[in-house]
Amino acid sequence: MDEFSVIQNYFQSLTAPREDVVFGIGDDCACVEVPLGQQLLISTDTLIAGVHFPLATTPHAIGYKAAMVNMSDLAAMGGMPCWASLALTMPEVNTTWLAQFAQGLKDALNPYQVALIGGDTTRGPLSVTLTLHGLIPEGKALRRKNAKPQDKIFVSDGLGGASLALRSLKEPLLKPDHQKILLEKLNYPKAEVELGVLLRSYASSAIDISDGLAADLEHICLASGVGAMLLEEDIPLHPLLKTYLGEDALSLALQGGDDYALCFTIPPENLEAFQTQLTSLNKLCYCIGTIEKKPGLRLKTRDHTVKTCRLKGYTHF
Amino acid sequence: MDEFSVIQNYFQSLTAPREDVVFGIGDDCACVEVPLGQQLLISTDTLIAGVHFPLATTPHAIGYKAAMVNMSDLAAMGGMPCWASLALTMPEVNTTWLAQFAQGLKDALNPYQVALIGGDTTRGPLSVTLTLHGLIPEGKALRRKNAKPQDKIFVSDGLGGASLALRSLKEPLLKPDHQKILLEKLNYPKAEVELGVLLRSYASSAIDISDGLAADLEHICLASGVGAMLLEEDIPLHPLLKTYLGEDALSLALQGGDDYALCFTIPPENLEAFQTQLTSLNKLCYCIGTIEKKPGLRLKTRDHTVKTCRLKGYTHF
Repeated sequence: MDEFSVIQNYFQSLTAPREDVVFGIGDDCACVEVPLGQQLLISTDTLIAGVHFPLATTPHAIGYKAAMVNMSDLAAMGGMPCWASLALTMPEVNTTWLAQFAQGLKDALNPYQVALIGGDTTRGPLSVTLTLHGLIPEGKALRRKNAKPQDKIFVSDGLGGASLALRSLKEPLLKPDHQKILLEKLNYPKAEVELGVLLRSYASSAIDISDGLAADLEHICLASGVGAMLLEEDIPLHPLLKTYLGEDALSLALQGGDDYALCFTIPPENLEAFQTQLTSLNKLCYCIGTIEKKPGLRLKTRDHTVKTCRLKGYTHF
Repeated sequence: MDEFSVIQNYFQSLTAPREDVVFGIGDDCACVEVPLGQQLLISTDTLIAGVHFPLATTPHAIGYKAAMVNMSDLAAMGGMPCWASLALTMPEVNTTWLAQFAQGLKDALNPYQVALIGGDTTRGPLSVTLTLHGLIPEGKALRRKNAKPQDKIFVSDGLGGASLALRSLKEPLLKPDHQKILLEKLNYPKAEVELGVLLRSYASSAIDISDGLAADLEHICLASGVGAMLLEEDIPLHPLLKTYLGEDALSLALQGGDDYALCFTIPPENLEAFQTQLTSLNKLCYCIGTIEKKPGLRLKTRDHTVKTCRLKGYTHF
């Protein structure tokens, strides 16, 4: 099967048509329309086999995750995802693999009516680069840089589950049903798109936790010129972390990547309104600490001593 | 060096600032503004080491070519390139390599004031995926599908040079100074951006010749529901093709990829005005045949017999 057949058979009609797509797959470029008053957000993430997902990951999960990690970047800025370009590199054309990969991609993109508009398929070691385009009303993008002292720090989910799953692939650690739950967490992250849209109106900064809470919160602190105090007892752990790791659970929750929850800051004057809206979204978020003027990341333990956090997020080299 | 240092040292300030970039590298997404009345063009191309460029290619040429092949896609639609996202996968961080690669990218992007706005750097087998964004006035994008019988077919440069260069890397074929000239052609393609902008007003269809003239012209014919008659004596060959290949030169010019010239069609009523504008652009293009109603690609040889062209363009699998 040549490149053109791969595109035609698996990707051409993958997603539903959108009115703002002037034309998509099948020309030298795709062409889309950005409505007046909206700005364009662009996110690119590459997943390499054996680096960003275990070699045994199903093609369905690879397709799903490639879309979701980018949607998570868009969600962190408050954007609505619209159009995706896919650069897929495969060692060979395996039609079973392709069908499942395409289905995974579709299952991630369809709930948000994101259109696959183009890309490139090439021969080489397996890797997936997705560039996702989204929209945000002018000036409303949530950045890392506007957190202020007294802002409350939140995360949108229990942490460390994906890291525990990764660890369990290297050493037999988990009961089979627990492993299944955690692999689902690792392979099928959920981008917090609706939460991101809500945060446009209330948050001062936001980031998605791909490299670990400590490392990603540090990005906010550095960009904002502030520091943070976290409360140990308020940091939500994935329920299975305590079961398997005991005292080490917190360290994994702080340093483990791949969770794709959002970490964001809410100024004191917005807290009440934000909590009300959160309830109407039927979404639970966790307040884990406070932004402070003093740079650095600190942790107040259960016995009220304050420790400086050493950062060890995921770095790619 | 970790991912953040790579980005900061080599890519953060690679390109000049643009007013329409709200923010670029350093957040979860980049954010740009599309002006009223313009549509957004998006092109993605992946270059894999050993597949799309010989392993011995210099990092400077890899960076340059990754940008130019995408600019060529945009040029084929009449678009102006604006913003690039880079997904770079490298086996290791080699600062000399990175500095040269970044310089190549810069040398391709800077003449058009294209801003590098984001991307992803990952560890893995060497590959470069660039997603290029450009602008085109509403409804003005040149497509493959509007060629009509009687339209004249043009190409924007002599063909086959890049293919001959590729062949010379496998077998000793060329004199050293000729090899140097042809490798320059292979490694440093020039996107026909200014010509593409001119074609907006005169052409009925266009494509860039990445897979070979025959294969790419076939894309135009299939998309437009037409055929084409080429005149052998009018097809421009790279000057060195005749020297080294004699009778085989034409076949390489028809089937060899990687030239990145434009192939386009001009309706009869636009011919005179187009030629006048071309002169003022100081650009030479070559009329190589005529679109016909009858499907398929035909070649009228020097002795006036008509042959059906068999298509063997580059396919990726």
